[in-house]
Amino acid sequence: MPEISSDNRVVTFINVFPTRPRDQAKLVDLLIKAHEGTIRHRSGYVSTNIHRSVDGYLVVDYTQWERREDFEAMVRDPSVAPYFGPIGELTKGEQKAYDVVFSHEAAEVRQL
Amino acid sequence: MPEISSDNRVVTFINVFPTRPRDQAKLVDLLIKAHEGTIRHRSGYVSTNIHRSVDGYLVVDYTQWERREDFEAMVRDPSVAPYFGPIGELTKGEQKAYDVVFSHEAAEVRQL
Repeated sequence: MPEISSDNRVVTFINVFPTRPRDQAKLVDLLIKAHEGTIRHRSGYVSTNIHRSVDGYLVVDYTQWERREDFEAMVRDPSVAPYFGPIGELTKGEQKAYDVVFSHEAAEVRQL
Repeated sequence: MPEISSDNRVVTFINVFPTRPRDQAKLVDLLIKAHEGTIRHRSGYVSTNIHRSVDGYLVVDYTQWERREDFEAMVRDPSVAPYFGPIGELTKGEQKAYDVVFSHEAAEVRQL
């Protein structure tokens, strides 16, 4: 399972997609299809986690890549456009590259 | 180290803080102080990861809690206000609760 760590030598892309409660499930479905259909198979891909806001108004896609250039090549890959088209009709996401600068986990996490 | 998983029975709070390149390092420092000084010691805390956008304009705090009520109790805890005051002078963050709905990691991650 994906780990976040300030020691990871990966680049993190956090993509925030505004949406509406009635569109949120469809947007999540389109993003999962894009990841399963092409993104996970692109060079340098490390991990993806897709988050649905409880209030219904945002979807956040948290992806890790080996290098920033790998992410940029994925965006330009011809296999990606057919997936991104329908997503673009639902929302305009904002994606940015991040470095993890602090990472901490409770010493003892109770079994849930 | 923290794991993200759609199987985790935790609630995720993603807090997005707009900032400026000249303030970003100070904001990161204040958030780390808040986590070290009080947040990590609150009941139900699971993990924190703080991210600095490469372009200098955002900081994202990704925290996991056992229950939504734990996060809400932390925000109201008297020990937290002295840390949040200086943060509020720098930025107004937007925080939302999320569920992880999809989690995938490359089968084979090359050693970096």
